[in-house]
Amino acid sequence: MRAVQVVGYHQKMQLTEVPAPEPADPFDVVVKIGGAGVCRTDVHILEGQWAEKSGVTLPYTIGHENAGWVSAVGSAVSNVAEGDKVILHPLMTCGLCRACRFGDDVHCERSRFPGIDTAGGYADYLKTSARSVVRIDDSLEPAGVAALADAGLTAYHAAAKASRALRPGYRCAVIGAGGLGHIGIQVLKAITAAELIVVDRNPDAVRLAREIGADHGVVADGTHVEQVLELTGGHGAETVIDFVGEGGATRDGVAMLRRAGDYHVVGYGENIDVPTIDVISTEINFIGNLVGTYNDLCELMALAARGQVRLHTTEYPLERFQDAIDDLEAGRIRGRAILTP
Amino acid sequence: MRAVQVVGYHQKMQLTEVPAPEPADPFDVVVKIGGAGVCRTDVHILEGQWAEKSGVTLPYTIGHENAGWVSAVGSAVSNVAEGDKVILHPLMTCGLCRACRFGDDVHCERSRFPGIDTAGGYADYLKTSARSVVRIDDSLEPAGVAALADAGLTAYHAAAKASRALRPGYRCAVIGAGGLGHIGIQVLKAITAAELIVVDRNPDAVRLAREIGADHGVVADGTHVEQVLELTGGHGAETVIDFVGEGGATRDGVAMLRRAGDYHVVGYGENIDVPTIDVISTEINFIGNLVGTYNDLCELMALAARGQVRLHTTEYPLERFQDAIDDLEAGRIRGRAILTP
Amino acid sequence: MRAVQVVGYHQKMQLTEVPAPEPADPFDVVVKIGGAGVCRTDVHILEGQWAEKSGVTLPYTIGHENAGWVSAVGSAVSNVAEGDKVILHPLMTCGLCRACRFGDDVHCERSRFPGIDTAGGYADYLKTSARSVVRIDDSLEPAGVAALADAGLTAYHAAAKASRALRPGYRCAVIGAGGLGHIGIQVLKAITAAELIVVDRNPDAVRLAREIGADHGVVADGTHVEQVLELTGGHGAETVIDFVGEGGATRDGVAMLRRAGDYHVVGYGENIDVPTIDVISTEINFIGNLVGTYNDLCELMALAARGQVRLHTTEYPLERFQDAIDDLEAGRIRGRAILTP
Amino acid sequence: MRAVQVVGYHQKMQLTEVPAPEPADPFDVVVKIGGAGVCRTDVHILEGQWAEKSGVTLPYTIGHENAGWVSAVGSAVSNVAEGDKVILHPLMTCGLCRACRFGDDVHCERSRFPGIDTAGGYADYLKTSARSVVRIDDSLEPAGVAALADAGLTAYHAAAKASRALRPGYRCAVIGAGGLGHIGIQVLKAITAAELIVVDRNPDAVRLAREIGADHGVVADGTHVEQVLELTGGHGAETVIDFVGEGGATRDGVAMLRRAGDYHVVGYGENIDVPTIDVISTEINFIGNLVGTYNDLCELMALAARGQVRLHTTEYPLERFQDAIDDLEAGRIRGRAILTP
Repeated sequence: MRAVQVVGYHQKMQLTEVPAPEPADPFDVVVKIGGAGVCRTDVHILEGQWAEKSGVTLPYTIGHENAGWVSAVGSAVSNVAEGDKVILHPLMTCGLCRACRFGDDVHCERSRFPGIDTAGGYADYLKTSARSVVRIDDSLEPAGVAALADAGLTAYHAAAKASRALRPGYRCAVIGAGGLGHIGIQVLKAITAAELIVVDRNPDAVRLAREIGADHGVVADGTHVEQVLELTGGHGAETVIDFVGEGGATRDGVAMLRRAGDYHVVGYGENIDVPTIDVISTEINFIGNLVGTYNDLCELMALAARGQVRLHTTEYPLERFQDAIDDLEAGRIRGRAILTP
Repeated sequence: MRAVQVVGYHQKMQLTEVPAPEPADPFDVVVKIGGAGVCRTDVHILEGQWAEKSGVTLPYTIGHENAGWVSAVGSAVSNVAEGDKVILHPLMTCGLCRACRFGDDVHCERSRFPGIDTAGGYADYLKTSARSVVRIDDSLEPAGVAALADAGLTAYHAAAKASRALRPGYRCAVIGAGGLGHIGIQVLKAITAAELIVVDRNPDAVRLAREIGADHGVVADGTHVEQVLELTGGHGAETVIDFVGEGGATRDGVAMLRRAGDYHVVGYGENIDVPTIDVISTEINFIGNLVGTYNDLCELMALAARGQVRLHTTEYPLERFQDAIDDLEAGRIRGRAILTP
Repeated sequence: MRAVQVVGYHQKMQLTEVPAPEPADPFDVVVKIGGAGVCRTDVHILEGQWAEKSGVTLPYTIGHENAGWVSAVGSAVSNVAEGDKVILHPLMTCGLCRACRFGDDVHCERSRFPGIDTAGGYADYLKTSARSVVRIDDSLEPAGVAALADAGLTAYHAAAKASRALRPGYRCAVIGAGGLGHIGIQVLKAITAAELIVVDRNPDAVRLAREIGADHGVVADGTHVEQVLELTGGHGAETVIDFVGEGGATRDGVAMLRRAGDYHVVGYGENIDVPTIDVISTEINFIGNLVGTYNDLCELMALAARGQVRLHTTEYPLERFQDAIDDLEAGRIRGRAILTP
Repeated sequence: MRAVQVVGYHQKMQLTEVPAPEPADPFDVVVKIGGAGVCRTDVHILEGQWAEKSGVTLPYTIGHENAGWVSAVGSAVSNVAEGDKVILHPLMTCGLCRACRFGDDVHCERSRFPGIDTAGGYADYLKTSARSVVRIDDSLEPAGVAALADAGLTAYHAAAKASRALRPGYRCAVIGAGGLGHIGIQVLKAITAAELIVVDRNPDAVRLAREIGADHGVVADGTHVEQVLELTGGHGAETVIDFVGEGGATRDGVAMLRRAGDYHVVGYGENIDVPTIDVISTEINFIGNLVGTYNDLCELMALAARGQVRLHTTEYPLERFQDAIDDLEAGRIRGRAILTP
């Protein structure tokens, strides 16, 4: 089969022929790729930023946002069958450790990560585990949802966790209306009646946020903390979801947070640096968020099937992978680039 | 001021002049009535069904679904001021007992119930407590929301409680699309992405439910349990909210419920009569629901202000109270009858 | 190896030689039995009560409360190794269905039940799955904990679920201080500070309950509802855990329950038969409980390791299985009979 | 009556005669003081550290940890009566704002704080509100529990919040076994079966922690992070409760925390300064804790009545207030100094 492989860091990837994977273990599932998201992380891999951390041996196939059709299954697979349309949870998990037994897949003690530390989806086929495949609705297509497998899942996980504390009449400030924020807003819209205040430096992103349902849009121009306070009667928002996590976002975000509020950390880069006296005197919480569980992905696919989460995508045939990478680096892609068969 | 009073059971009420209430205690709030809902309970009061239970002395003024404008406040009132538009929580609560301290207003050990055991809102003014008044949005009018004070609050409470277990992709069967069910569906629509399956004997009610957002409508014609099972892949719904509670609804409702599911009891009349072996072997829950808390009413008003809960009402000037009662008894009212100043 | 098998219903079991199991699939785990609990269910199996429900083919080996040492593992097993001391979760689960992915093992859509529908633990060895083995502390012995695998797990699950609503100062009425109740009391004692009121018909059981930590013991002599109400200031207990479920226990239990309280159904036999008007006017809940999850079993073993849950057992060598059955039927066993190698 | 008053900052307090308070408003409660805790905050008040923040006018009576007997009540008080033994929640709250309606007393928008910004309990009588008095068990004495009113309440609140995530087999690292930690350990012991690992710089405090139930004691000698990791199989503790919050405690505490763990902030002084990448890649939470609610205080009193929380106290008659202050400053008090009538 065809596969796009990293052959060296700081080099261009190469399209090559490799043997197609086949089920070996009873829970193996081989998926014919219908869509593989092209993500900024892929660029970082090429730059060697993940080399040490992943410990992967070159050459290997990248691509960690995948969807397609089941083409073969191992002997013990009972949840999918050949021909099923599926999206892939980004991790392959053991199912036996304590985290797995609680459904906290991302904290699996023995997980593998196709596209990062083992063969990914820039290819015709990918081998994963029965524990990682989620059937998608007839109305959805692999290429349309692939990018929800990682970025979308992360946004869903944070928004769903935040939503448990969001009652009608509460305000949720969303910092960052880019790739993740865009999904997060749609999710919050679908599962809460909270008033959504979206903050972004980019006026276009703010405008788009308003179009997909944000109640208020605030351009981060230096007056944004003040604007959010004004929109919340001076109290601040009951919940802040920070999809940025750098460039002063956390300092501003904490200033927008109401007493006893939840600050969800999703984006990263800078430090949270807050006096403990402020944490206790206002009794606020900082809540970490990491990708999402298998069940989260099922729920996100339910939202997608209802048309409540949509993503703008630009498709490239697999062999045009270099164009996709180039367009991504040049900022020429609206929404997400997806490689298709 | 004018007041419509019960002067004897099985008699018509009389419009009479009584002294207007004034704040006596520090937390008293006097409200100029803008809308008073005409409820089937009012008919039952006139029939004497509540005489013993309420222990009220005749004559007295009924009306337990009230909204209006604050006209005077006691010395310690800090949450509302003269002129504020408010809806009234149906109970006056002590604020001191354990239930009150947890915000479980309906379980207050020393509550009073205006319109049931003390003077209600079929009048120009009503005296309540600061603990019972919820300010409403500028965009709302007392006559438009009054009927949400009791029936709407009950539906909100049950729907909000149920929603905590409803994730995207889950199914919620709503039994009964009448007064309460109609509100419940709108609430579920606003705060969950669950698939709503509405069951009612009345095809018109089912049709209306579909118009306000139900995903599926099922006419209860004897095949309804089967239809719900079919719509849920044979598993049953994760949650059933039963706004009916009589005529076999509970037996049918349990048959529609998935393993480990929640059965919310709201309507009443018949017994829940289920073998304990069935309760444990499927590990299902029966969850009682009683009116709603003060905070629930605040949240419902937030939904109303966002236009996410709407009610069809027919207004009658206070002096035409008898027409409202007659029309209600004759089934001539669409939505709710509201007495206005 | 030796195995005690059912060769016909209403016949005595036979000790026979059968091939020892070996790992075939990657997740298989073979356990050398160190203790197999003799349970009333085993007697029922012999009487043919489970014949139709389990669909099992005779002859087969019973025994569904098992603990021992891992003797061999399949290729993919990462959570235990040869020689590990383990207790066995009663079910073998798929790990792939939605229930499994949420950690709700007992609702697995494709589970098997060793000792009920496949070979159990009245034998030298038993084959189960990596998903069903829980390592136990060095201080514990298989024969000492085997009976916690099913009866103990059920009691733990209910007590742990109930405990989430039990704050210091709350009262929990425990109906039934027999096998399950005895464990339940120890669990509640370990994880809550609730006041425990134990009700049983048997004065000896009540006495024993007091010895292991119950704050109050009430003999069910006809005045027990009244006594519980008196002990709870007339309000009833915030939580009732009913380990009996027959002989009027549910009627009495509901009468002991406080407004807004939780009624946990564990024992079974009779119907819950309660007017919906009572369910809603007091806003009570009925909560089903079914065995327990894998994680529940891990937690119960943590309590056992701390000495917070103890069980009285009487050991019989495997070949004396008939004596154990006879003693059980004759009521001659204090605590639990355990078959040992 | 007698009252000990602050007459000027950096001066000694004076015992003087002032008019005894009387109920004026319907919810007023006058309490004859049976015990008033002497707290380090009192020393800080005398040093003027609270002058600006509290805005209080001198002279005034301090003392914010109070218990005693109800001596007079306003007309609307229904929860206590003359003669009742009570402990006082430190705040007087409005009961009407949103926080109060959720039972979150410490976030009341209009609270007063006797002993800080209004007359406190270094006196024969103190006036508070019906919303602030908790009846205590017959077995308890005001002087014995007074110090639980603030310090104890704070420790209870944090421990109770933390306990919701603490299952049997989980580890909880408690940083700081001083005044608050000492109570926190007893509370955790009473309401969880978690393994308690207590860390303190003071070997005596560690020893005492072991005596009252800590499973492991670790002296913070530079190897303490390593020791905690060793005690937790290298994973870290599922929960950390930090009663210190300064001197590097937060950095060490985060290093002791397991993936997906909760870090409870109670003590304060330094900053939490953590890279967002660490927060998200381990998905940890920082949870603020501020004093406790009225209901928390009721629950703590239930634990005290059961003998599950005990405090060592040294009593001083009111007129010997200066000795108490002097002994506190000189570090001569074991446990807590309490002023008595």
